[in-house]
Amino acid sequence: MASLADIAAQIGGHVVGDASLEIKRVAPIDEAREGDLTFIANPKYVAELETTQASAVIAAPGVESDRVALIVSDNPYLAFARAVEFLHVSRPASLGVMDGAHVHPEATLGEGVTIHPGCVVSAGARVGNGTILHPGVILYSDVEVGENCLLHANVIVREGCRLGDRVIVQPGAVIGSDGFGYAPDGGRYVKIPQVGIVEIGDDVEIGAASCIDRAALGVTRIGRGTKIDNLVQVGHNVVIGEDTILVSQVGIAGSTTIGNHCTFGGQGAAAGHLHIGNNVTIAARGAAAGNIPDGQVMSGAPAMPHKDWLKASMVFPRLPDIRREMQQLRKKVAQLEKQLEENQDP
Amino acid sequence: MASLADIAAQIGGHVVGDASLEIKRVAPIDEAREGDLTFIANPKYVAELETTQASAVIAAPGVESDRVALIVSDNPYLAFARAVEFLHVSRPASLGVMDGAHVHPEATLGEGVTIHPGCVVSAGARVGNGTILHPGVILYSDVEVGENCLLHANVIVREGCRLGDRVIVQPGAVIGSDGFGYAPDGGRYVKIPQVGIVEIGDDVEIGAASCIDRAALGVTRIGRGTKIDNLVQVGHNVVIGEDTILVSQVGIAGSTTIGNHCTFGGQGAAAGHLHIGNNVTIAARGAAAGNIPDGQVMSGAPAMPHKDWLKASMVFPRLPDIRREMQQLRKKVAQLEKQLEENQDP
Amino acid sequence: MASLADIAAQIGGHVVGDASLEIKRVAPIDEAREGDLTFIANPKYVAELETTQASAVIAAPGVESDRVALIVSDNPYLAFARAVEFLHVSRPASLGVMDGAHVHPEATLGEGVTIHPGCVVSAGARVGNGTILHPGVILYSDVEVGENCLLHANVIVREGCRLGDRVIVQPGAVIGSDGFGYAPDGGRYVKIPQVGIVEIGDDVEIGAASCIDRAALGVTRIGRGTKIDNLVQVGHNVVIGEDTILVSQVGIAGSTTIGNHCTFGGQGAAAGHLHIGNNVTIAARGAAAGNIPDGQVMSGAPAMPHKDWLKASMVFPRLPDIRREMQQLRKKVAQLEKQLEENQDP
Repeated sequence: MASLADIAAQIGGHVVGDASLEIKRVAPIDEAREGDLTFIANPKYVAELETTQASAVIAAPGVESDRVALIVSDNPYLAFARAVEFLHVSRPASLGVMDGAHVHPEATLGEGVTIHPGCVVSAGARVGNGTILHPGVILYSDVEVGENCLLHANVIVREGCRLGDRVIVQPGAVIGSDGFGYAPDGGRYVKIPQVGIVEIGDDVEIGAASCIDRAALGVTRIGRGTKIDNLVQVGHNVVIGEDTILVSQVGIAGSTTIGNHCTFGGQGAAAGHLHIGNNVTIAARGAAAGNIPDGQVMSGAPAMPHKDWLKASMVFPRLPDIRREMQQLRKKVAQLEKQLEENQDP
Repeated sequence: MASLADIAAQIGGHVVGDASLEIKRVAPIDEAREGDLTFIANPKYVAELETTQASAVIAAPGVESDRVALIVSDNPYLAFARAVEFLHVSRPASLGVMDGAHVHPEATLGEGVTIHPGCVVSAGARVGNGTILHPGVILYSDVEVGENCLLHANVIVREGCRLGDRVIVQPGAVIGSDGFGYAPDGGRYVKIPQVGIVEIGDDVEIGAASCIDRAALGVTRIGRGTKIDNLVQVGHNVVIGEDTILVSQVGIAGSTTIGNHCTFGGQGAAAGHLHIGNNVTIAARGAAAGNIPDGQVMSGAPAMPHKDWLKASMVFPRLPDIRREMQQLRKKVAQLEKQLEENQDP
Repeated sequence: MASLADIAAQIGGHVVGDASLEIKRVAPIDEAREGDLTFIANPKYVAELETTQASAVIAAPGVESDRVALIVSDNPYLAFARAVEFLHVSRPASLGVMDGAHVHPEATLGEGVTIHPGCVVSAGARVGNGTILHPGVILYSDVEVGENCLLHANVIVREGCRLGDRVIVQPGAVIGSDGFGYAPDGGRYVKIPQVGIVEIGDDVEIGAASCIDRAALGVTRIGRGTKIDNLVQVGHNVVIGEDTILVSQVGIAGSTTIGNHCTFGGQGAAAGHLHIGNNVTIAARGAAAGNIPDGQVMSGAPAMPHKDWLKASMVFPRLPDIRREMQQLRKKVAQLEKQLEENQDP
């Protein structure tokens, strides 16, 4: 519970209307009730201002209402994110090393950490100030986790891997699993020991049950601010830049490099040993099969420019018609040829 | 070990032949030996009655045999399922809170529960009567799990999520991970706190390592009787109806609603913010890219009616032929045009 | 640190150059520095011998250098794998049953095992000599794990499943989850109890968060030497041969059999109840939809011969052109027909 004035001050906006309104929670515009704050990030929803039951709405400059109070912000979606944080998220007090947690005497813990029951922090591991390890988190030896990180239940970080500050890892994610590398020896495969590590930059988030493989030699690297969704596979020696987005179930094969500000849609993929530039978008289910320069928007498998894919995809269901017409044309042309021949040799 | 008469009484059928036969186990028809019970769910396998080594067979009315005893049932496959349950599954006795389990004093446990070593049941969590938590299950604060649920090893249910009765969760599944939502702030992404929950209806099953994201605000909902296979992703604010099937590796993007009695084949998908009706089938690898009304059967990516996709897919490998023929036709038509011109201007 | 002579003796090769050189580590050819050993597995990289900073290089017979020492080997990639093993991997000493591990009194442990904190070894389970269970590994009742296996953190093996010797399982993998089988009962689904097991042969590796379902009845089988990457789904009653490769995010539906020496590329798939022969390759994202005889290389969904798929995929982006040309041809042919008709009836 907070006044609209307090919220506006927190999230960076100014109030138009009754700044003393008490707000209980943030809610979607069509579910909001009295006492709720909602938001309009897209101008096409402005009409909903006429019907919403919310008491207050975050909106862009120029939006007006005589029904509800407004918090005017240049970036309403960002202001909404901050409002949810302010009203709904409370940072829990540090609980230290709880009963049932296993912290090796040669591990190093920062101040204000919380290590829940069932966690294992191995020899040589370091956990930064304010970091929380939920139950069942396993840090192998010599792992480094930065400050104010949040590792959810059953997250595993294997030996020697390093996480920056404010990294969030959802439950069950695996950082530093062995890369998939074998040397053929006759008909059999001999494992190539994977002795590299994973380095994860500040402000990265990694989704539930996602797997980031350690390098064979060297480093698999996830750049600052990159966000990875659930069930994503990142192969060994992959290097991903900053502020890149990998949506759920994406797979990036080994040794591929991806630039900054890229987006891979759900179930997308990149083959191995590719170079993908900055600001590249691979649409959902798209599969990069070759290098891609900066700024391209690609779809399909193998990926092609999105506009080309859209057009070709619209023709695809008509392939049976095209084949049928082709056969008809063939017949007609044969007939014409025959007729012409007859005309010439009467 | 049970007599055929006892089994028939349990599974709902009547015996034709020696009802006193002692049955040891249920087996597939081609692996069954003396003392085994098997089944014929599909009439096309009736000929196997002549060769099976099984002592007894569950079959539909009208099937006859002078070699083996029969249990006649209107739904042989269902009767088979019940026979496996009766002969092979024994509900273990309750073991209470075992050594090495961590149950918070402010958690509430029903009667007859089993909480294995390594489990964590947090403050405010409630576990219903007869529910079993296998080793390493983590219930965050305020989780509610209904009666007679079976949560396998290392399942995680995050804060405030609710499971109905008789819910089965396979090992390593994650319920209530954060949805994937960020507000752009310049070139960076700011996390939108995911403060909603997940609600799972009665008789739902969730597969190993599947992830059901909590809502941003509000509820991600899985309806009664829905069955979800392994490695499936369900995004935030998704609403799935009753008795719907999601086969392995399916991905459902955020805010999509799916009706009752739908089926998504393996590696299928739905984009976000879609409405998919009741009784819709998306074939394996199909990807719903727009709303789909009731009763449709769809394939392909983007999904189209299955029959259209089948026909188009059969033409696809002939695309090089079509292009070649097109070039030949172009040449022939050009020649015909030239000839006609010459004929007209002799 | 070891001399080049010692390394050559270990990995099976002979030294050309200074055999007394002390080698610190193995490194990729473009990152290697003084004191490093690197390798050239592919003759096209021989030119890099002129620029590498490595002190020594593993190479095939016939390669020569006056800049660096060589270890000459018939299989440089395999020799490299062994060199990494020799220089970088040390088998840790056995630690026995550590504090915080839960081993049931009716479990059987071999000699020289290590059972880390948070592990649960249930009644009737057997762990072979020299096997390591990392933290949080859960073995249900009657599981058998062979000798010198390495089960990483939070791996789960459900009741009765059996692993051979030298099996490696990456973190969070699930062996023996229930297969996905239900009998329709009116509009609802009744679970078919999955009472079979999983058997995994010697020298198999299973990737992080991969799921191998137990058989409904009988056995799901993974043959000796087969390597499975991360986030792979193997359905119930699947039988996979020896030395087969499943790359990340592959899904194999129930009851399909796959032969020896096959390869499924990333995100590939096979439908259920198929027979796939020996030496079959399914390219990345390929989906086997029918039986496949020995030795085929297939791509696409549904899978077709790879060469056909390559050609058809190159035509796909030109579909809009093909349709446009088709329309032009249709017009021209109609015009020709009209002209001919006019010529004949002047």
